Amino acid sequence: MAKLRVHNLATSLDGYAAGPAQSLSEPLGIGGEALHDFFWKTRFGSSDPDAGETGLDNDVLEAGVDNIGAHIMGRNMFGPVRGPWPDKSWTGWWGDEPPYHHDVFVLTHHPRESVAMKGGTTFHFVTDGIEAALSQALTAANGKDVRVGGGVATVRAYLKAGLVDEMHVPVVPILLGGGERLLGDDATAGYRVDRFAASETVAHYWFVRR
Amino acid sequence: MAKLRVHNLATSLDGYAAGPAQSLSEPLGIGGEALHDFFWKTRFGSSDPDAGETGLDNDVLEAGVDNIGAHIMGRNMFGPVRGPWPDKSWTGWWGDEPPYHHDVFVLTHHPRESVAMKGGTTFHFVTDGIEAALSQALTAANGKDVRVGGGVATVRAYLKAGLVDEMHVPVVPILLGGGERLLGDDATAGYRVDRFAASETVAHYWFVRR
Repeated sequence: MAKLRVHNLATSLDGYAAGPAQSLSEPLGIGGEALHDFFWKTRFGSSDPDAGETGLDNDVLEAGVDNIGAHIMGRNMFGPVRGPWPDKSWTGWWGDEPPYHHDVFVLTHHPRESVAMKGGTTFHFVTDGIEAALSQALTAANGKDVRVGGGVATVRAYLKAGLVDEMHVPVVPILLGGGERLLGDDATAGYRVDRFAASETVAHYWFVRR
Repeated sequence: MAKLRVHNLATSLDGYAAGPAQSLSEPLGIGGEALHDFFWKTRFGSSDPDAGETGLDNDVLEAGVDNIGAHIMGRNMFGPVRGPWPDKSWTGWWGDEPPYHHDVFVLTHHPRESVAMKGGTTFHFVTDGIEAALSQALTAANGKDVRVGGGVATVRAYLKAGLVDEMHVPVVPILLGGGERLLGDDATAGYRVDRFAASETVAHYWFVRR
């Protein structure tokens, strides 16, 4: 059975997957950029394929792209545009050739035609909810798994509906003091920690249903 | 300068230092006993001095008793008696010879004479608040540090007053889903994570003031 998976949804030690006061200039909120410091240090996160650290953090990130056939994301992860789409100009944060190379389903309240990008990524805009998006993504994935990319609100919605099969959360040893909560919230009530492993800088947890 | 230290205040991954629905039969709340599983596996936590695991978890626990000259604890940690002391019969959970071997200051609203136990532990009952207890404990410690033993409410009170100099928190990879919160709460607002190290079963964090 194809699965719905979440990977690399980094949180602070106090359970926030984004810091307080998110804005266009600070999309991860105050202090939230530090959640991704470990990512950029890995080979996976490095722009130079021969640079960056290997080891647990890198292995875990590599695993997050293995056997994924489609993505789902919230509109805020796709871009900063709010309300009805004013035109076709915004096509995501990732330039002409996004790193997905498969179908990506964007949750939105506002219909828009699909956008085919270079390298095999096509953005589809789903207006009828998270279950419809999952159904379409599973079809598009053609037997492979579907990954929910984020943001936090989208992942929380799938968790609360009990639709997530596996979730990987790197816990970064910082306190954000506020923001978008993932841990310590009823979103994870139906889940348990299945596995735990830590590098020198990050503790990784894998969640499954209870 | 002598310090006020907290050690081994275990929390769940979702930030709870005790589970929901604490009671006399489940003083750590539902599921809360699992917070201490790692403790009992160590040499420090073993009743047999030649048994139990050594390594990081054990080293961290040993460090928690190093250079401590007095303890402070809340009344709930001392015992289940509520309201005025009915008699002198309750002398703690630890039998005739408690493992402290120094002065222990118990925060309570109800005065009571000090109780000297075997092995050098004397319980003192402090009715005029956390700062008075700290002052008395520092005097008793005679240059050594003072440790706040718990429970969570007492530690939170000292954290909120900015009086804790160092706090060690082992994070156990379980979700409790509710209970007494330590992480993800304003109690730690004045603190930051100074150090992080993990064994195969527990992630340890050390907090200091910002």
